[in-house]
Amino acid sequence: MAAELSLSNPVFKLFAYYSTIVLVKYLLLLPLTALIRTTRKKYSNPEDAKAFGNAKSTEDVKRMGATDSTVERVKRVVQNDIENIYAFMALAPLYVLTAPALNTALWVFRLFTGARVAHTVCYLLSLQPFRGICWIINISINFYMAYCIYQSCAK
Amino acid sequence: MAAELSLSNPVFKLFAYYSTIVLVKYLLLLPLTALIRTTRKKYSNPEDAKAFGNAKSTEDVKRMGATDSTVERVKRVVQNDIENIYAFMALAPLYVLTAPALNTALWVFRLFTGARVAHTVCYLLSLQPFRGICWIINISINFYMAYCIYQSCAK
Amino acid sequence: MAAELSLSNPVFKLFAYYSTIVLVKYLLLLPLTALIRTTRKKYSNPEDAKAFGNAKSTEDVKRMGATDSTVERVKRVVQNDIENIYAFMALAPLYVLTAPALNTALWVFRLFTGARVAHTVCYLLSLQPFRGICWIINISINFYMAYCIYQSCAK
Repeated sequence: MAAELSLSNPVFKLFAYYSTIVLVKYLLLLPLTALIRTTRKKYSNPEDAKAFGNAKSTEDVKRMGATDSTVERVKRVVQNDIENIYAFMALAPLYVLTAPALNTALWVFRLFTGARVAHTVCYLLSLQPFRGICWIINISINFYMAYCIYQSCAK
Repeated sequence: MAAELSLSNPVFKLFAYYSTIVLVKYLLLLPLTALIRTTRKKYSNPEDAKAFGNAKSTEDVKRMGATDSTVERVKRVVQNDIENIYAFMALAPLYVLTAPALNTALWVFRLFTGARVAHTVCYLLSLQPFRGICWIINISINFYMAYCIYQSCAK
Repeated sequence: MAAELSLSNPVFKLFAYYSTIVLVKYLLLLPLTALIRTTRKKYSNPEDAKAFGNAKSTEDVKRMGATDSTVERVKRVVQNDIENIYAFMALAPLYVLTAPALNTALWVFRLFTGARVAHTVCYLLSLQPFRGICWIINISINFYMAYCIYQSCAK
């Protein structure tokens, strides 16, 4: 029986469930960035400083355009998610099609999601080497799924 | 009847149609960036300055490597697309599998695509708060699709 | 017979095979970046400099936080992959569903993968205009697939 991409396939349903959690975690960072920019009055565009920061002068615009360490940190969290979560979203459906055991797939998706949530918390709280460990778990799972797909395709 | 990922499923066909439009809009930004770099002679690598900008001296290379406000703006448009469109491309197929009503799906995809096209135009023309409104529409649709998928998986 | 997203569809299997190669190539850049950061003792966060670079003073942290041309280059390679590979991963499954001829699909996927691998090599070795040619091949293939999908959906 070939595995299929449908919610009636229990492995795919697990993927849909966990990937939605991990994507929502990621999506929440985007309004968080906007909130931090507004609170700290730091904007990436002059028109944003005028519209949302009430900038009146060229001086205001320039000051509000300066880099801010908190904004830069959240941007790095977003970038790290883009580097890892989108790769997971590209690989995981192919991994589902290799028909892995339900329990294996459960732990692959659960570990990835848990490690990504912990990675964000560690990044925002500047916790090392915990953040590094989470990152290694995420990247190892992506490599593991790639290996499983390659095995299935080489057959 | 379970929804499937195939062009014979009308909801999926809508997704394929609108996601292709939004991806082409995004892809067009990449040669646009290259064009702006060439026109303004600003390159991100020394070898680009030499190959395309006809840089002769170390002075030339350095000058052509300076940041340029127009190039930076287009790069921010691309980055915003990466943050939002790829999340849409990850969530929308799962949303299709939740078997939404054709008309609901039509408006979800249409609104996302329209808001994203308008977002790019507003970004390039520095229009606020219109750009912010488009961004809120895009992110709300991504959260809405995530909610629908979560509902379907929790059942 | 409608094309389907399953490993029993030979065109989809080709996609799974080549996209895994191109994603692994991309994923390898992430630990490479970490390795280069460790070797050159350049970190993007103060806590990284303390945990991995053995930074003792504020002076150390500041020095290790400076931008490094090699790190910046690898980051640009990653960014270029994000801009192009993720778009490929979004478009290619839709392209498979348009039921292209096996041989056409083979060359589309093979060319994209080959050009992307060559692009990374050229980027790391600063080779122009070879890198630009690879980039044009990759972007042309993405536009070509978008065109095929649009044709299938407009029917």
